[in-house]
Amino acid sequence: MPGYPVLPEGLAYGGDYNPEQWPEEVWREDVRLMREAGVNLVTVGVFNWGLIEPAEGEYDFSRLDRILDLLHSAGVRVDLATPTSSPPVWFRHRYPAGRLVDHEGRVLGGGSRHSFCPSSPDYAVASERIVTALAARYGGHPALAMWHVHNEYGWANAHCYCPVSAAAFRAWLEHRYGGIDALNTAWGTTFWGLTYGSFEEIEPPATAPPGLLNGLRLDFMRFSVDAHIACFRREREVIRRHGDLPVTTNFMIPNCKPMDYWRWAPEVDVVANDHYLDSERADPHIGLALAADLTRSVAGGRPWMLIEHSTGAVNWQPRNLAKRPGEMRRNSLAHVARGSDSVLFFQWRASRYGAEKFHSAMVPQAGTDSRIWREVVELGADLRRLAPARGSRVEAEVAVVWDWESYWALELEWRPSADLRFRERVEAFYEALWREHVTVDFAHPSADLSPYKLVVLPSAYLLSEASAKNLHRYVQAGGHLLVSYFSGIVDENDTIHAGPYPGALREVLGLSVEEFHPLREHETVTFRPPGTPPDQARPRPTGRVWSERVRLAGARALYDFADGPDAGHPAITRHDLGAGTAWYVATALDPRGEGAAHAPGLRGLVALALDHAGVSRPRDLPDTLEVVRRGDHLFLINHADEPATVGGVTGTGVLDGAAYAGSATVPAGGVTVIRT
Amino acid sequence: MPGYPVLPEGLAYGGDYNPEQWPEEVWREDVRLMREAGVNLVTVGVFNWGLIEPAEGEYDFSRLDRILDLLHSAGVRVDLATPTSSPPVWFRHRYPAGRLVDHEGRVLGGGSRHSFCPSSPDYAVASERIVTALAARYGGHPALAMWHVHNEYGWANAHCYCPVSAAAFRAWLEHRYGGIDALNTAWGTTFWGLTYGSFEEIEPPATAPPGLLNGLRLDFMRFSVDAHIACFRREREVIRRHGDLPVTTNFMIPNCKPMDYWRWAPEVDVVANDHYLDSERADPHIGLALAADLTRSVAGGRPWMLIEHSTGAVNWQPRNLAKRPGEMRRNSLAHVARGSDSVLFFQWRASRYGAEKFHSAMVPQAGTDSRIWREVVELGADLRRLAPARGSRVEAEVAVVWDWESYWALELEWRPSADLRFRERVEAFYEALWREHVTVDFAHPSADLSPYKLVVLPSAYLLSEASAKNLHRYVQAGGHLLVSYFSGIVDENDTIHAGPYPGALREVLGLSVEEFHPLREHETVTFRPPGTPPDQARPRPTGRVWSERVRLAGARALYDFADGPDAGHPAITRHDLGAGTAWYVATALDPRGEGAAHAPGLRGLVALALDHAGVSRPRDLPDTLEVVRRGDHLFLINHADEPATVGGVTGTGVLDGAAYAGSATVPAGGVTVIRT
Amino acid sequence: MPGYPVLPEGLAYGGDYNPEQWPEEVWREDVRLMREAGVNLVTVGVFNWGLIEPAEGEYDFSRLDRILDLLHSAGVRVDLATPTSSPPVWFRHRYPAGRLVDHEGRVLGGGSRHSFCPSSPDYAVASERIVTALAARYGGHPALAMWHVHNEYGWANAHCYCPVSAAAFRAWLEHRYGGIDALNTAWGTTFWGLTYGSFEEIEPPATAPPGLLNGLRLDFMRFSVDAHIACFRREREVIRRHGDLPVTTNFMIPNCKPMDYWRWAPEVDVVANDHYLDSERADPHIGLALAADLTRSVAGGRPWMLIEHSTGAVNWQPRNLAKRPGEMRRNSLAHVARGSDSVLFFQWRASRYGAEKFHSAMVPQAGTDSRIWREVVELGADLRRLAPARGSRVEAEVAVVWDWESYWALELEWRPSADLRFRERVEAFYEALWREHVTVDFAHPSADLSPYKLVVLPSAYLLSEASAKNLHRYVQAGGHLLVSYFSGIVDENDTIHAGPYPGALREVLGLSVEEFHPLREHETVTFRPPGTPPDQARPRPTGRVWSERVRLAGARALYDFADGPDAGHPAITRHDLGAGTAWYVATALDPRGEGAAHAPGLRGLVALALDHAGVSRPRDLPDTLEVVRRGDHLFLINHADEPATVGGVTGTGVLDGAAYAGSATVPAGGVTVIRT
Repeated sequence: MPGYPVLPEGLAYGGDYNPEQWPEEVWREDVRLMREAGVNLVTVGVFNWGLIEPAEGEYDFSRLDRILDLLHSAGVRVDLATPTSSPPVWFRHRYPAGRLVDHEGRVLGGGSRHSFCPSSPDYAVASERIVTALAARYGGHPALAMWHVHNEYGWANAHCYCPVSAAAFRAWLEHRYGGIDALNTAWGTTFWGLTYGSFEEIEPPATAPPGLLNGLRLDFMRFSVDAHIACFRREREVIRRHGDLPVTTNFMIPNCKPMDYWRWAPEVDVVANDHYLDSERADPHIGLALAADLTRSVAGGRPWMLIEHSTGAVNWQPRNLAKRPGEMRRNSLAHVARGSDSVLFFQWRASRYGAEKFHSAMVPQAGTDSRIWREVVELGADLRRLAPARGSRVEAEVAVVWDWESYWALELEWRPSADLRFRERVEAFYEALWREHVTVDFAHPSADLSPYKLVVLPSAYLLSEASAKNLHRYVQAGGHLLVSYFSGIVDENDTIHAGPYPGALREVLGLSVEEFHPLREHETVTFRPPGTPPDQARPRPTGRVWSERVRLAGARALYDFADGPDAGHPAITRHDLGAGTAWYVATALDPRGEGAAHAPGLRGLVALALDHAGVSRPRDLPDTLEVVRRGDHLFLINHADEPATVGGVTGTGVLDGAAYAGSATVPAGGVTVIRT
Repeated sequence: MPGYPVLPEGLAYGGDYNPEQWPEEVWREDVRLMREAGVNLVTVGVFNWGLIEPAEGEYDFSRLDRILDLLHSAGVRVDLATPTSSPPVWFRHRYPAGRLVDHEGRVLGGGSRHSFCPSSPDYAVASERIVTALAARYGGHPALAMWHVHNEYGWANAHCYCPVSAAAFRAWLEHRYGGIDALNTAWGTTFWGLTYGSFEEIEPPATAPPGLLNGLRLDFMRFSVDAHIACFRREREVIRRHGDLPVTTNFMIPNCKPMDYWRWAPEVDVVANDHYLDSERADPHIGLALAADLTRSVAGGRPWMLIEHSTGAVNWQPRNLAKRPGEMRRNSLAHVARGSDSVLFFQWRASRYGAEKFHSAMVPQAGTDSRIWREVVELGADLRRLAPARGSRVEAEVAVVWDWESYWALELEWRPSADLRFRERVEAFYEALWREHVTVDFAHPSADLSPYKLVVLPSAYLLSEASAKNLHRYVQAGGHLLVSYFSGIVDENDTIHAGPYPGALREVLGLSVEEFHPLREHETVTFRPPGTPPDQARPRPTGRVWSERVRLAGARALYDFADGPDAGHPAITRHDLGAGTAWYVATALDPRGEGAAHAPGLRGLVALALDHAGVSRPRDLPDTLEVVRRGDHLFLINHADEPATVGGVTGTGVLDGAAYAGSATVPAGGVTVIRT
Repeated sequence: MPGYPVLPEGLAYGGDYNPEQWPEEVWREDVRLMREAGVNLVTVGVFNWGLIEPAEGEYDFSRLDRILDLLHSAGVRVDLATPTSSPPVWFRHRYPAGRLVDHEGRVLGGGSRHSFCPSSPDYAVASERIVTALAARYGGHPALAMWHVHNEYGWANAHCYCPVSAAAFRAWLEHRYGGIDALNTAWGTTFWGLTYGSFEEIEPPATAPPGLLNGLRLDFMRFSVDAHIACFRREREVIRRHGDLPVTTNFMIPNCKPMDYWRWAPEVDVVANDHYLDSERADPHIGLALAADLTRSVAGGRPWMLIEHSTGAVNWQPRNLAKRPGEMRRNSLAHVARGSDSVLFFQWRASRYGAEKFHSAMVPQAGTDSRIWREVVELGADLRRLAPARGSRVEAEVAVVWDWESYWALELEWRPSADLRFRERVEAFYEALWREHVTVDFAHPSADLSPYKLVVLPSAYLLSEASAKNLHRYVQAGGHLLVSYFSGIVDENDTIHAGPYPGALREVLGLSVEEFHPLREHETVTFRPPGTPPDQARPRPTGRVWSERVRLAGARALYDFADGPDAGHPAITRHDLGAGTAWYVATALDPRGEGAAHAPGLRGLVALALDHAGVSRPRDLPDTLEVVRRGDHLFLINHADEPATVGGVTGTGVLDGAAYAGSATVPAGGVTVIRT
C-alpha cells in the first residue's frame, strides 16, 4: 500500500490534536508534553472546515500552517484530516438541498456535525474543493505521515431519505438490476402485490405501515454504504493527485452497524479503527478483543491502526465509567497484541467546551499532575520498547463468521423472536473462545476458510447459496464447523432457502429443522444425553431464547433437550462429512460456566469442538488471563486482581527486561510481553 | 342473506391461497394436497392488484384464470378477494394525494400494504375500477362460492389525517350535527374557549398540546369507521351488480380497536373473522373463546366464518410461540363450537419471501413430512365428521356488554388512573365466566337484553342515557346485572352524566360514588363482611387499581373494604330492584382463585351472581375443561395435561364414533364432541 | 407594588370560576355556596377568548357582564383573567403562521389550548386587542381585585421552532452578542468547526444529530423565557393604562422547567403560583413545602398567592390519587405558613366536560353532600381565623441555591452520568432540612447571601465566575457553605472553568477533583473515617450515582470512601476559610436514615453543618411534624397518624382558641397554629 508503514521507526503513539480550541501559548506546552510522553503522531484538522474556509471559497490556512510547522519542528508527525464530516454552517445555509433527512422525513437541523446528505452533489462540489485546497497546500509538507479522510463515516448520517438520495438510490438500483423485472424477482414483490412498474416508482424505505419489503430495506443499506464509499473515493483521488502518503479513514468496528467494513477495507491504504469500551458491561476488555480481532480481519490480517480510543471515560454512554489504574495500559497493549501498529487517543488535550468536553484525554482537565498523565507517559515508554513488534502478524486457527448483511437482515422486523440479535450470539461464542485462550480471526462466509482448523457460525441468518457451498467444501476438505441456531435461513434478498430449514446448511449439518419453537421471555431449557431418562437430569447449563425441532439426517445427537417444547429431541449434534465435522447447537447457551468436561455449556461445547479440531491453546490458565501471540511477541495480559503464572515460556521480557525461562508470573492487572 | 350458506355440504376448510408466489408446477401439487387434506374452500387474490392491473387500466387475468380453473377442476371452491387493501405501486406514484398521513403529519411511505387514504377520491375511482373488472370477469365463475372484499379494514390506515380526510371529516360532521352550534354543545367547547365558528375551522385530532377535545377525538373515530364502511359498500355494490354470492370482509375481532364491528356487521352477508392467539399469554385459548363469542354476537348469533387463523406461530408478535401438538385442533374446534361454520387458515403454503414468511401455514416450510401437515389432514377428517353442526346455533344465558365507543373513550388521555383499560376488565370477567363453564354472548348496551338471565358490565365507562334506561328496564323486568367500577360515567360525547357518579347507573345500582380513589401502582386492598372488625380479616383475594367511596342508596353491602382509602366502606353491593337485582364491585378483583364459597374473588362474585340469576352450568369440572353446546353438539375441549371426566352426558361421539351413556372422559389435550 | 394587598381584610379564599360551563341558574347556587364557604376571591375568564370574541373583532360581553355583577352583588371579589392562553379557533384558522411548531418540525394541531407561537406578530396583535377590550370594559369594575394575565406561561408552548420564532431568536442573539464573533466565542464553535459567519445562519436547536451546541441550546431557552415575558409585558401595559390593580400571572413552581422564574418575578405585582402534589410519591407534602419556599423566595420573601391547588385528585398524573381526609387542610395551611396570603383552587365547580373533568374541585361531582365540600367550608373558617397572618413574613437562616440555568444545563445530553438530575439532589437536601425542622429560603447563586448562616449548593453544575466569587466572599465573611458533587463545573455557556474540577469552587472548598468516577446503575459505595482500616467498616449509609477522586488542598477529610473506585480517598470534606467553613460531599447520600450522630448519611451531614453554623431549630420532634414560623404565627402540621407534642410553646391557638403554655399536642393529621 502507498507509503506504509506510516512510521517506519516503530509504533505510532498520540491522538487527535485540536489546537484550534486553545490559544497559541498552549500549543507550545502541548508540543513539550508530547515529547515528554513520546508522542510521535497526531491527527490534526478533523473539524477544521469552518475555520479554514470561513466563507465559501475563501481560505485561511494561517493557523494550520503554524501548527504543522510547530509539530514538524518538534518531530511529531501529522495524520492530516480532511474536515468533511462537519461542513461549515454556510454550507447548510446556502445549500438546503444538501441537508440530511431522516426516515421520518424530518430535515435534520444544524449545530452539530454529520448533518448533510452523502449523495448531495452540492456537498460533493464543496468537499472536493476543500480537500483539493488542503492537498495542494500540505501534500508535500514534511510533517505529514498520512491522510485521515473525513471522520467516522456513517456516524449520524448513515442513511439519508431526501429526494436527492432517493434519486441516487433509484440510479443505483437500475445499475444493480439492469431491469425492473430482476428487481421485482429479487425483492419478491408478488407478495402483497407490490410489483414495481419502473425504477421511477421506487421510494426509500421511510416510515410506512409494517411489513415493508426487506429487499428494499437491504438494498437501501447497501446503497448507503456505497454512497459513503463514493464520498471517500472522491477525496482519496484528490489526495493521490498531490502525493503518495497513505490515505485512510477511521472505522468504528464493531459499533457502526450500517457500515459494511468488508466492503470498506479495500478502499483504504491502512485500516484504522476507533474503539471505545462499553464501560458498564462486565469484562469490557473481551469486547475490545473482539473489536481488535475483527479490525485485523477486515484488514486482511495486515497490521492496522488503533486511531482513536480513550485514556478513561467517554461522554456519550448512559454512565461513563472511568478506566481504573492500569486499564488504559492493558487496553492499549491488547490492541497492539492483536495487530495494531499504533495507539492513538481521542484526544490529546481535554476540551473545555463542546459536546465532548467530558471525554477523557491524554492531558485531562486535571492537567499533568494526574494519574492519567503519568500513565500516558509510562505507556509511551512501553510502546517504544515494543517498536520491534511493528509490522508483525497474528495467526489464528479459528475463524468466526461475521457478515454485516446478516446483521442487518436478522434485525429487520418480524423475525420469529425479538430475542434474536446478531451480536448477542457472536459475542457469546467469542467470549467462550477468549476464555479458552484462543485467538480468532473473523471471516466473511464467502472467504477462503482453508487456513482455519475450526470455523464458527454464530448468527449467519443470511447466507448466500455461494457461501453455503463454500462452507460445505471447507468441511468436506477436513474443516470443522460449529453452527448456532437460525443460521443459513435466507439468501441475500431475505428469501428463505428452498426446503426445510436451514436450507443453506441442511446438507453440511446432516439435519433439518421441522419447526422453530421460540421460548418465552426468560424461559429456559435444559439438556440430557440421548437415551437418558428425564428424571436423571441434574442441574445443568440452560438454553434461552430458542428451541426447535431438529430431525437428524446423517448427524447424531450429542445432547437432547430435557424439557421445553422439544424435550427428547436433539439439541446439540455432530455430523461427520468428508474429512471434516459439522457441529450444531439449537439453543442459546451461556458463554460462561462449566468447562469442556461438562458440555453442553457453550464454553464446554466450544472446547469440545476445539479439541476435536486440534486447535492448540494453553491449558490450565485462569480465564481472566489474555494470551495472544503476535509474531515473536507473546502478550500476557492479566485482567484479574491476582497474579497469574504461565508455564512453558522462555524469552526476554520486553517491558520489564527480565529473562524468562520456563514460566512467567504476570502481576495482578499487569501486562508481560515476552519475546521468544 | 344472499347465497348463505356458503358451502351447503358442511363446514368450510382451507385457507388463503397465494399461488402467485409459486411456479405453476407447485400449483398442481397444491391442488393434490388440498384434496388430501379435505380442503374445500380457499381465499384467492387478496394481494393481486399490482399483478392483474400492472399499469393503470391495463389488465392481465391470465394467471388468475388458470388458477380458478384449476381449483374448479379439483372441486375446491373459491372465496375470491378484491385486492384493494394493497394498491399497486403505480397508484401511489400517480396519485400522491391518495397517500396515508399519520397523526404526526407524516406521509407514510410505500413498500407495504394499506398505505392509502380511505377517503381518497382517487382511491375510490381506482378501486371501483379493479373490482368492476374482477366482478365482471369472475362473477359467474363456477368455482366461486363467495366474495372477500379487501383485507382487514383498518389494519394500518384506520385513521388518515391528510387534507382530503380532513375535508371529508368536516362534511361528515356537518351531516351529523346540522349546524355548528350543535357540535359546540356536543363537544363542550366552552371548556378552554374552543368554540368553533364554522365547520371550516375544524381540523382532525392530530398531534397537539395535551387536553384535546374528546368529542373531536370520538367523532373522528366514528368518521373513520364510516370512511372504511363506505369503501366496503362501494365494492359490495359493484359485486352485487354481477351476481348474488355472499359478500364479506375479514374482521379482526377483538384486536382492531378502531373498527366498531357492531356498525360493520350489518354490512356483510356473513360475518368473517381473523383470529390469532396472543401466544405468550397464559391460557391464550380463553382469549380465543372471547373472540369467537364476540364474533358470534356481532353476527347476531348467526353462524359465522373463521376466515383466518394459524396452524402454528405467527410472525408479528415479540416472541412467536408455536402451537403445541393438538393445540391447532383444540383451537379450530373451539371456534366451531362457538358458532363458526368454517376453519380457514392464513395461509395454505408458507411463503419463501415477504413480510409473513415466518408465519406458519397448512403446508409449512418443512413440507408435508411434518407434524403440522399431519394435523392438518386429521383436522380435515374431523371437520367432515362435524358437517351436521353447520348452521346450528349457540345459546347463552349470560351477556357481557362490549361497546367499542366505551373502549375508545376509556382509553383517551387524562383518566383517573392509567391502569383503567377496557379489555383488562372485560377479559377478567370473561375468564371468570369461562372457568365457570358458562357460555356468554356479548351485547351492545342498547340491545334487547331480555333473553339473558345475567348481564355483565365490566368496562362501560361510556354509556348513553338511552342505554342506561335499557339496563334499568332490564333489571326492573327481572334481569340480573353485574357492574364493575367506573361504568356509566359519561355519555356519548364523553360528558359526565349529571349528579354524583355513576350518573347513568346510580338508580339501578342503588348507590352513588362520592369520590374515586385510584390506587398506587401495585397497591392492593382487601375485604371483609360489613360489621366485621378489621383484625378478624384473614388473607383474602385482593383488589387492585381502584377503590372508591360508595354511598348506599337502596343497595346493601356484601363486603366492605378492609383497608385502603375506603376501609370500612362498601366494596361489593347488591340492589334488588323490581323483579331483578343489580350487583356492583368497586375494585379490580382477580379472575382466578377461590370459588363461590369464598367471595369476593372475582370468580366467587361471578358465581354468586350466576347462582342468584339461576344460570345453568355444569358443576365440579376442572376449570381447564371448555364446555360448549352448539345445537345438538356438545363440545368438550380439554386444555389440561390430564384426562377429564364429565358426567351426565349421553349420545354419540362425533369424532371418535363412541357411544356415551352417562359420562365421558376427554383425553389430556383432546376434544370430544357428543351429539345428543 | 400597585394595589397590594389584594384583599386588605385578610387571606383570599376561592378558586377558578368558569360559569360559562353552566346554565345561569347554577350561577346563583354558586354564589350562595361561595358565601357559605367564605369564598372572597374567584378567578374569572381564563378561557373566555373564543366566547367573548366569537369572530375576529366582534365582541359579546353580555355573559361576563352578568357574572361580574352577580359576584359583586354577593361580595365576592374577582381576579379577572385575560384569556390569551387559549386563542379562539378562528385565530389559528386565519393566521396559520401563528401556529406552534415543535422541535421535530411538526405544526401542532388545534382542539387544545396553548397551541400558538409566542413570537407571532399575529398573536401579538390579536391578544393585545382582546386585552384592550377587556381592560377598557372592566378596568374600573368594582368587583375587580386584580388581573390574572394569561394562564401558565410555557405550559405546552415553552419553545416554538417555527420560522417566525427562528427570526426572533436571531434578532435576540444579535442584541445579546452585538457581533457574531462574540457569539462564536461564547458558544465555542471552533469545536467541530461550527463557526457562524452571520446571525442569518443560525437555526433553532431542532432535531439534529447528537452533540448539538449547548450554547445554542441554552440561549434558545433564555430567548424563549424572554419571548413569553414579552407577551406578559404587552398585556400588563395595556391593563395599566386602564387602572392600577395588581397584575400577575400564575407560575408553575417548580414544575415548569423552561421558565426561569428568577427572571419572571420582577415582572409581576405579586407572585402567584399553581401547585399540585406529586400524588403517588411518598410524603408529597415535602415537595409542597419546597414549592412554597421556592415561590416565596422567588417573590423576594414578600407574601405571595397560592392561586391554584386542588381539593383532591388531579387528572393528568398516571394515577391521580385523591387527598385523604385532612390532607387538603394540611396542604392549604402549609402554603399559608410558608408565606401565601391566599388559598385558591382549581376550580370552584367540577366540570362535566372537557379535559379536566376528573380534576377535583371545591364543589365536586358529588355535590355538597360530600366530605370535600364539608372540608372546604371548614377551611374557609380556618382562613378567617388566620386573617391576622396576612402580610407577615417568614424568616430563614438557611438558603438552598436554585438556578434554572443550572437545571437546564445539567440535563442536556452527554453528561458523565445519566443519573445526574438537578431536582434529585435539591430535593434530597431539602428533605433532610425539612426533617430537621429547618425552614429554608432558596437563592440564586449571585444573590446576597449574607442573611444566611448556612448556604447549600446541591446541583450547581453551571456556576458563573461572578457567582463563584459571591460564594467565596460569603464564606470568607463567616458563612457556611455545603456543596454537593458536580457543582461549579461550567460557566453560563456550558464551558468548563479552567483548571482541575470544580473550577469555580476549588478555592472555596480547598480541594480539587482529579477525575470523575460515575457509578454503575444501582452501584453503591460506603464510608469510613480517614485512617480506619477497611475491615472495621460496619454497615453504613451508602452513596449512589457518583464517586470521584478528591485531592485535598486546604480542606480535610471527614470521611473517606471505604470502597468503590475511590476507596481510601476523601468522600466528605471540610474547609475552614476566613471566618467561615465550606463542606463538600462527593457522592449522592440518601436524605433519610441516621441522624447527626451517625454521619455521613445526608441527614447527619446536614445536621453537622447546621450545628456548626449555629442554625437554631427545634429538637427531639418526630420528623413527620412540620414546624414553620410566619411572623408571630407558629404553624405545627402533623403528617403522622399519631399525635405529636411540642414543648416550649406559649400563646393562643388561632384555630382552636386554646391557650398554650409550655407545650402543645397536635392531633394526628391535624394542624395547630399558635400566635405567640
